[in-house]
Amino acid sequence: MTTARLEAFTDGVMAIIITITVLTIRVPADATFSSLISLLPIFLIYIWSFQTVGIYWNNHHHLMRATSSVNAGVMWTNLHLLFWLSLIPFATEWLGDHVGEQWPTAVYCAVLLFAAVAYEMLERAIIRHQGKDSNLATALGNDAKGKISVLCYVLSLVTAFIYPWISYALVVAVIVTWFIPDRRVAP
Amino acid sequence: MTTARLEAFTDGVMAIIITITVLTIRVPADATFSSLISLLPIFLIYIWSFQTVGIYWNNHHHLMRATSSVNAGVMWTNLHLLFWLSLIPFATEWLGDHVGEQWPTAVYCAVLLFAAVAYEMLERAIIRHQGKDSNLATALGNDAKGKISVLCYVLSLVTAFIYPWISYALVVAVIVTWFIPDRRVAP
Amino acid sequence: MTTARLEAFTDGVMAIIITITVLTIRVPADATFSSLISLLPIFLIYIWSFQTVGIYWNNHHHLMRATSSVNAGVMWTNLHLLFWLSLIPFATEWLGDHVGEQWPTAVYCAVLLFAAVAYEMLERAIIRHQGKDSNLATALGNDAKGKISVLCYVLSLVTAFIYPWISYALVVAVIVTWFIPDRRVAP
Amino acid sequence: MTTARLEAFTDGVMAIIITITVLTIRVPADATFSSLISLLPIFLIYIWSFQTVGIYWNNHHHLMRATSSVNAGVMWTNLHLLFWLSLIPFATEWLGDHVGEQWPTAVYCAVLLFAAVAYEMLERAIIRHQGKDSNLATALGNDAKGKISVLCYVLSLVTAFIYPWISYALVVAVIVTWFIPDRRVAP
Repeated sequence: MTTARLEAFTDGVMAIIITITVLTIRVPADATFSSLISLLPIFLIYIWSFQTVGIYWNNHHHLMRATSSVNAGVMWTNLHLLFWLSLIPFATEWLGDHVGEQWPTAVYCAVLLFAAVAYEMLERAIIRHQGKDSNLATALGNDAKGKISVLCYVLSLVTAFIYPWISYALVVAVIVTWFIPDRRVAP
Repeated sequence: MTTARLEAFTDGVMAIIITITVLTIRVPADATFSSLISLLPIFLIYIWSFQTVGIYWNNHHHLMRATSSVNAGVMWTNLHLLFWLSLIPFATEWLGDHVGEQWPTAVYCAVLLFAAVAYEMLERAIIRHQGKDSNLATALGNDAKGKISVLCYVLSLVTAFIYPWISYALVVAVIVTWFIPDRRVAP
Repeated sequence: MTTARLEAFTDGVMAIIITITVLTIRVPADATFSSLISLLPIFLIYIWSFQTVGIYWNNHHHLMRATSSVNAGVMWTNLHLLFWLSLIPFATEWLGDHVGEQWPTAVYCAVLLFAAVAYEMLERAIIRHQGKDSNLATALGNDAKGKISVLCYVLSLVTAFIYPWISYALVVAVIVTWFIPDRRVAP
Repeated sequence: MTTARLEAFTDGVMAIIITITVLTIRVPADATFSSLISLLPIFLIYIWSFQTVGIYWNNHHHLMRATSSVNAGVMWTNLHLLFWLSLIPFATEWLGDHVGEQWPTAVYCAVLLFAAVAYEMLERAIIRHQGKDSNLATALGNDAKGKISVLCYVLSLVTAFIYPWISYALVVAVIVTWFIPDRRVAP
């Protein structure tokens, strides 16, 4: 079973998630500058969400290029990743309405955490399918970046209840870390 | 006529259905934990809908891999399947607002039933096109799983008017049954 | 220039149009049977819109299979077709709220008319690009079906202001006519 | 790394942007001709947005056909372009509600300006990747059209605060300029 249709479906779902998230920026009723400025928090969170989905798409692309075939386990694990990503529009909208508040921050961080864990599971499912000596297993090595991301999101989930702004710093830190594409897999 | 564009269009429609269904989880007005908890029913139903569309995508993928060419009948039957799947966002939203009530439960189960029947019709249209001795016809055999799903959905439609929670159990049961991809078609 | 990316983009746009149109069926506030029944008109119009987009996708598929290359003119004409199709969700929602009224009926019929004219223009742009002796020109012949559709839509636009139900009958008549895929192009 | 999946993802995102923008045309509450006429401004702005995204898709298509491979820089630059395009539905809706007002006009022009700059950056990233003597570098030449577009958008941003109708004229002027596909890249 080749990766072609898995990639096509994943591309489609990610393209839609990245695009409908913009609908969470609700158009202000009037045409004033102050209304525009009041959108700044949701706009910033939209940028994080856009970047995060963009990073997943990019890394997924690299991952699939190092993958020659998929089995049923890989397909379900991939769908599991898409499930958590599909909650990003909801999490973005709720946080955008309530920046600095505990529960919306926690939900946003939790969705990102579960997506990161799902991505790690996808990597493992592919390695399990292709064998420990495969190119991918060698290329990923101990996958420090992935593990650090998961750790950051766990931390951000805790800080959401103490001081949410630390959570936001952690979310941005992960984005910056991943901005550099995964050269371990890319040639 | 090859299956490529049929798959691409089906992937696109399914990717959009699976993603816009998340818009049915409406963001609460406040930022409290109790508001979040009140979303639990719609969240669970969203999981069922996501899984169900994911299963159709997965099985459709397997079905098309065992199909070498399509004719007009297959294309219309495929569109018929997509029609019923396209009603899942509506059915999910109505049921999410009214868990445990008769008519929303019945509509949700009816949409899943018609989609299941449409999938059976698609399988038959492909077998009719490829011949009774084709790989697909042999692989599908008597298609016990598909027939049991249809039966479960018929039952869930009846129980919706008696005790809706039995309907939900049946919907979950079908998801669990299909979670294992169709090994009859997959190699 | 091959037709691959033109088809991919067209598939994407049509898949989204066909799917977001379902958002025009607004979920009722209560869970009663009478609320469900009150959705019948919009549901019927949704079926027409779904079928119409499905027919365009199907015929577009056949058209592209008879087309070996595209030029700039074909790309713009294709985009022009997508523009009119993109208005279908709006037209469906307005008519669904006001069945039997003049202007919503006229707008719905006008959108379908302009889409039909745009499709005729696309066919002509492809024939102009490929030459009058091409397979496509021969296959399309005098294109009676396409011309009859345009005529029906013109008529339906007139009857929208006299007796809208004749317009609906004409829209359904065109759907029935096109349901049979264009065998002139298909092998 | 081939351009295939970059094109597929870009097609998906652009297809969704072009289609969900139509949701900004809100269906009127009544069925009168005057309600329909009141939609004219938003309808015109929708046409501009549709055309603009269509032009980007078309030019992107030509650009990718002159590109044999992509690197990480090209992928991020492409995502940057998609980010600005993703704001078009928001900008369209706000301007549609407030035609002739300063800030909505300025935001619309700013989004188009940033998208145009992002497209220039994408072209440069591809040339940097492929070398200054590549087909693309030669084909693009001094890229007068691209530079004029950016200039027009800068101007439109200034005039938004003086006399918004000049901004609209400039937006339309850019659309007309680009309507002719980029023959420098196309064969």
